[in-house]
Amino acid sequence: MTTTLSAELWPDVQPEAARRLMLAAVESFAERGYHATTTRDIAGAAGMSPAALYVHFPSKAALLFAISQSGHEQTLALVESVVERDGTPREKLRSIVEDFVAWHARRHTVARVVQYELQALPANEYAVVTDLRRRIENHVRDVIAAGVEDGSFTVGDLRTAARAVLSLGVDVARWYSDRVGKTPKALGREYADLVLRMLGATV
Amino acid sequence: MTTTLSAELWPDVQPEAARRLMLAAVESFAERGYHATTTRDIAGAAGMSPAALYVHFPSKAALLFAISQSGHEQTLALVESVVERDGTPREKLRSIVEDFVAWHARRHTVARVVQYELQALPANEYAVVTDLRRRIENHVRDVIAAGVEDGSFTVGDLRTAARAVLSLGVDVARWYSDRVGKTPKALGREYADLVLRMLGATV
Repeated sequence: MTTTLSAELWPDVQPEAARRLMLAAVESFAERGYHATTTRDIAGAAGMSPAALYVHFPSKAALLFAISQSGHEQTLALVESVVERDGTPREKLRSIVEDFVAWHARRHTVARVVQYELQALPANEYAVVTDLRRRIENHVRDVIAAGVEDGSFTVGDLRTAARAVLSLGVDVARWYSDRVGKTPKALGREYADLVLRMLGATV
Repeated sequence: MTTTLSAELWPDVQPEAARRLMLAAVESFAERGYHATTTRDIAGAAGMSPAALYVHFPSKAALLFAISQSGHEQTLALVESVVERDGTPREKLRSIVEDFVAWHARRHTVARVVQYELQALPANEYAVVTDLRRRIENHVRDVIAAGVEDGSFTVGDLRTAARAVLSLGVDVARWYSDRVGKTPKALGREYADLVLRMLGATV
């Protein structure tokens, strides 16, 4: 089951042992926080020796970076795939919110590490992730701007509006659990309605 | 300066040494996370001995609880003070969002500990805080329900709407910093406009 889960979370990461370590790291960070977790804890949780961990990741920070970078690349990819499609700004924004919210709900444990442990990244890695975040935010801002342009949206401040849209999605990772009784997809749809209204579109 | 800050954050906590320890705990938790922080770290950051810490707090968990409980009581108090005032549901919701958002922006470091370290609370303390959170959410839901009743708001699902309103405010603690170039008060006003629209009110 763990193998399947890690393949679903990180389809682009090879070999399987590296994915297994990333999953063990996510679970350890989620439980105790990044700083209180050792590489020994992570290796142990993955059923591996510390030496075997270092074959794949030179440090705990490298593991955090792999998780963070992959999470940001995945969310950027889902935003880009919507932006590149044909569609009105309104349709695009609906799809972005649906996908972004569902991603944060479905992978809420991974997403918490991705969103809340940024400060623990070393400077160069932090810069890489910050660049990915900026690209996500710029796409959202551009779609909102296009909607203002064509008369679908009315917003006071573009930057605040884009930040609020993403903020609603990110915070899903904090509160979502399977006990909420709502699928990630259903939540994404409800949030898309809320966001479109927030931007002054009639739903 | 630290004395002034801690008095502003926790006006109801006495003596000053207890507030100083709470401030040192917030700073240590924010830097390294709860689990990687020791009572020795906190005492040191407050310029006190570990023995002096135990005079005021029996454990690190007691410190976290004091910070968490106070934060939740403060936000509940600001919601209650709005609810008890005269006003339309629309006016009340605007005030709640303005105050709740400004609180999370102004005290973003404290608010991060309050909002993101809940899982580290012992069971009984967690139950106390959960009850405070439920009361906050119920007030917001009641105000939205009253607005639906009097025709000011249109929402699909009351529970989702209330959660989204609070979620936007909570997430401010994650991303807000003094570099944002917007005062907590100004951000609160902008967010109140966004939220009112999200609930189907004309701004």
